[in-house]
Amino acid sequence: MAQEDIFKKLVAHCKEYGYVFQSSEIYDGLGAVYDYGQNGVELKNNIKKYWWDSMVLLHENVVGIDSAIFMHPTIWKASGHVDAFNDPLIDNKDSKKRYRADVLIEEQLAKYEEKMNKEVEKAAKKFGDSFDEAQFRATNQRVLANREKWDQLHQRFSDALNASDLAELKQIIEDEGIVCPISGSRNWTDVRQFNLMFSTEMGSTADGALKVYLRPETAQGIFVNYLNVQKTGRMKIPFGIAQIGKAFRNEIVARQFIFRMREFEQMEMQFFVKPGTELEWFDLWRETRIKWHRALGFGDDNYRFHVHEKLAHYANAAVDVEFKFPFGFKEVEGIHSRTDFDLSQHQKYSGKKIQYFDPELGESYVPYVVETSIGVDRMFLQVVSASYHEEEVESSNGQKDTRVVMKLPPVLAPVKLAVMPLVKKDGLPEKAREIIDDLKFDFNCQYDEKDSIGKRYRRQDAIGTPFCVTVDHQSLEDQTVTIRYRDTMEQDRVAIADLKNIIADEVSFKKLFAKLK
Amino acid sequence: MAQEDIFKKLVAHCKEYGYVFQSSEIYDGLGAVYDYGQNGVELKNNIKKYWWDSMVLLHENVVGIDSAIFMHPTIWKASGHVDAFNDPLIDNKDSKKRYRADVLIEEQLAKYEEKMNKEVEKAAKKFGDSFDEAQFRATNQRVLANREKWDQLHQRFSDALNASDLAELKQIIEDEGIVCPISGSRNWTDVRQFNLMFSTEMGSTADGALKVYLRPETAQGIFVNYLNVQKTGRMKIPFGIAQIGKAFRNEIVARQFIFRMREFEQMEMQFFVKPGTELEWFDLWRETRIKWHRALGFGDDNYRFHVHEKLAHYANAAVDVEFKFPFGFKEVEGIHSRTDFDLSQHQKYSGKKIQYFDPELGESYVPYVVETSIGVDRMFLQVVSASYHEEEVESSNGQKDTRVVMKLPPVLAPVKLAVMPLVKKDGLPEKAREIIDDLKFDFNCQYDEKDSIGKRYRRQDAIGTPFCVTVDHQSLEDQTVTIRYRDTMEQDRVAIADLKNIIADEVSFKKLFAKLK
Repeated sequence: MAQEDIFKKLVAHCKEYGYVFQSSEIYDGLGAVYDYGQNGVELKNNIKKYWWDSMVLLHENVVGIDSAIFMHPTIWKASGHVDAFNDPLIDNKDSKKRYRADVLIEEQLAKYEEKMNKEVEKAAKKFGDSFDEAQFRATNQRVLANREKWDQLHQRFSDALNASDLAELKQIIEDEGIVCPISGSRNWTDVRQFNLMFSTEMGSTADGALKVYLRPETAQGIFVNYLNVQKTGRMKIPFGIAQIGKAFRNEIVARQFIFRMREFEQMEMQFFVKPGTELEWFDLWRETRIKWHRALGFGDDNYRFHVHEKLAHYANAAVDVEFKFPFGFKEVEGIHSRTDFDLSQHQKYSGKKIQYFDPELGESYVPYVVETSIGVDRMFLQVVSASYHEEEVESSNGQKDTRVVMKLPPVLAPVKLAVMPLVKKDGLPEKAREIIDDLKFDFNCQYDEKDSIGKRYRRQDAIGTPFCVTVDHQSLEDQTVTIRYRDTMEQDRVAIADLKNIIADEVSFKKLFAKLK
Repeated sequence: MAQEDIFKKLVAHCKEYGYVFQSSEIYDGLGAVYDYGQNGVELKNNIKKYWWDSMVLLHENVVGIDSAIFMHPTIWKASGHVDAFNDPLIDNKDSKKRYRADVLIEEQLAKYEEKMNKEVEKAAKKFGDSFDEAQFRATNQRVLANREKWDQLHQRFSDALNASDLAELKQIIEDEGIVCPISGSRNWTDVRQFNLMFSTEMGSTADGALKVYLRPETAQGIFVNYLNVQKTGRMKIPFGIAQIGKAFRNEIVARQFIFRMREFEQMEMQFFVKPGTELEWFDLWRETRIKWHRALGFGDDNYRFHVHEKLAHYANAAVDVEFKFPFGFKEVEGIHSRTDFDLSQHQKYSGKKIQYFDPELGESYVPYVVETSIGVDRMFLQVVSASYHEEEVESSNGQKDTRVVMKLPPVLAPVKLAVMPLVKKDGLPEKAREIIDDLKFDFNCQYDEKDSIGKRYRRQDAIGTPFCVTVDHQSLEDQTVTIRYRDTMEQDRVAIADLKNIIADEVSFKKLFAKLK
């Protein structure tokens, strides 16, 4: 099946099984905003716990905070967001539609690429087995012409973006004859910068209110609390501050389900180090973080690093962890060596001394910072993408059937255990509830008595429940039940008294943490 | 010590020990917004876990969701917030200061009350032991005059508020000769309604952006997801949906630390029931919720119910759980029988049928709703207020000393265990770290080697750490340590191998849940 089809099915599955709903769906939705349903919220909470505990329990020198979404507006001046957190926008005067100028140009680049690929494909069909792509490219004028166009345009585009040259972006759009997909016209306005921060008015005095922003990242909440945490927590460098919280970006082009949303959640950790040691720590956190991803068992080959060649003005090293989504390798986490940029800026703008007195050196300095930054929602998408499977199985009547199963790591699964009476009578429901009452403080359990056992198994497979326990008449006699394992579909007869240990071992965070050492 | 002094000390203590910091403190703060520090975030997370698990693990028919802060703006039209979620404001033309008209009048009422109390106090001093307050009130003209004034004003004020009569509020302020505390003048503008919702602009098209609100309550996120959760979760009435999340209100008069903030967090559960049964469920949830509070052991007398006599337009019963804060009994939780108001409004505004087909009745209806709504931050304030103690103790040299101790319920404490080597040598630090390595996945542990053991105990008392373990030379020989209990300050010598069980038993959520049955 094509990857796009898989992705569409995944989105539908997430809705059908209570993982992700479109926000305000009964009001026809709100763009690029999503809600997490009864299973989604549990999966999301488990992902957050995995991250949080791996930061603050695993590392003696990492502590958490929870800073507010509202912050003093000068903070975003200091961080550079007020002046430079922009997208270049352009309007088509006929359709009245607004576009990101950079996206229009990227799409043009993609068209050239597609053309090249088609030529190559055509030649491959024509020449069959004797086809050699490299040779073809070397001699085919049409491909070479497109290649050259692509290179030139790409260079011109990069230069304009780096220089924030809006007139040049407009010129490229005009030179390339890019048309509005709606109106088909080339009647464009100038390109203008559009700030991605949401703003609102706080308080109300006769003199007016204070314009504040919804934070576009959680990191600054850590930086402005650096002094408070270091002092009240008696922290010694190197140490880290971790935070999970919402952030907001007014994306014009938001897409790919929960991959890029206007309201999203971040898990960020800022690690404060002695200047000059930051690249060692950068390397260490880079390895620590990819190990954290891989420990979930989705296949090591589904991850890769993307090293940034062009660095942001505040960074001296940056790398992304990329995961293979159904729509290709995409960033799930960034590790950045941010130098002393942020703390120095806050020192400058606040007028407060933001330094660390190093007792070993006997002197003070502004610490350098290594950041690890991951989106909760992207991590969620990584987990459900990697877990969604359609399998050919044989149904009870011997016919081929498709089983949809979410092979979630048991430790992250929203429901750990479904308990099912074989029939709705003879005291079996009571026995099932008795088992739930005994286990419900340890695991999220679900009682399920409707439909045939086979149907119930499939339902739990679709939710991703790793264990199903069936209570039958024998259970009343010998205190045993059938336990059925989601991934293998195998079944064992076990003592009710052993259930807790069997399940606890499989859903243990401790066991997962042991892989991180 | 006066209660206000205790409260001031508590606020200072929360900052000094990493519980609560003023937001954007290095930028001189942001009004009525606070950040949670390294200990605050852990306490807050534990409170949230207590609530969440007591809802979704304890009740088979309660599931969670996590809906976004941004919602379709029509939702707030349907809920009544666009039209009626207002405060009456008035400006003083000389000072340019803005006030809540209702608060100005409340302060005037308080003045009359204070006057009455002073008269009574004066008489008490004069007449000494023979003083009888009731008799005095009955005969003293001045007190009676004030009493009458108070009653009249209170009645007029209540009527004006209930009728939303802004002109009458202004008239009361003028008739009472209330002056601006800054300018001292009576030069007031008219009273106007001021909506408490924060708004912002989403997206950007040439035609303009969509005005959206930051949700002023999490409840509506549950109502608009009722259909999705009921269907995809195959829920049968009665059932509940629980949610924890941020909400925002542009309070003009925000005060009392984290008691009333502009950005705050709610834990709300909406329980959907058959029409006509709502008052039974209301009674049940009222008892369930006060039990939940009392299970923390802060003293049953520190809680009381406040039954609402005047009900909101959507309610047919409402009660608050009040806790005795240092500034008096105040609401920490509300239980409301909201009828079918919200679902019916959303049915009307969205045009979607929002009903439940009851298989027993064989007919469909709009469910009735019983809500339990509690503020995370108020709950946090309840916990730290009740836990903060100053005790007279004898120090090691026999002198009287004051011990500041946070007697947090161990299950909620941010740090469960501090491990301390007696001295920083002879392999004791290594032994201490070995213990931490063995326990750190089970409990949040802290290593502490600085200062004398006595000082370290005090530091951990101030944080609220329930257990301190000291590693001494004997520990290396016989694998035992000293465990010291925060509340009693008693010490036991125990085997290192027993630590996990001793502590696990005291910090167990399961044990706490057992009290809720």
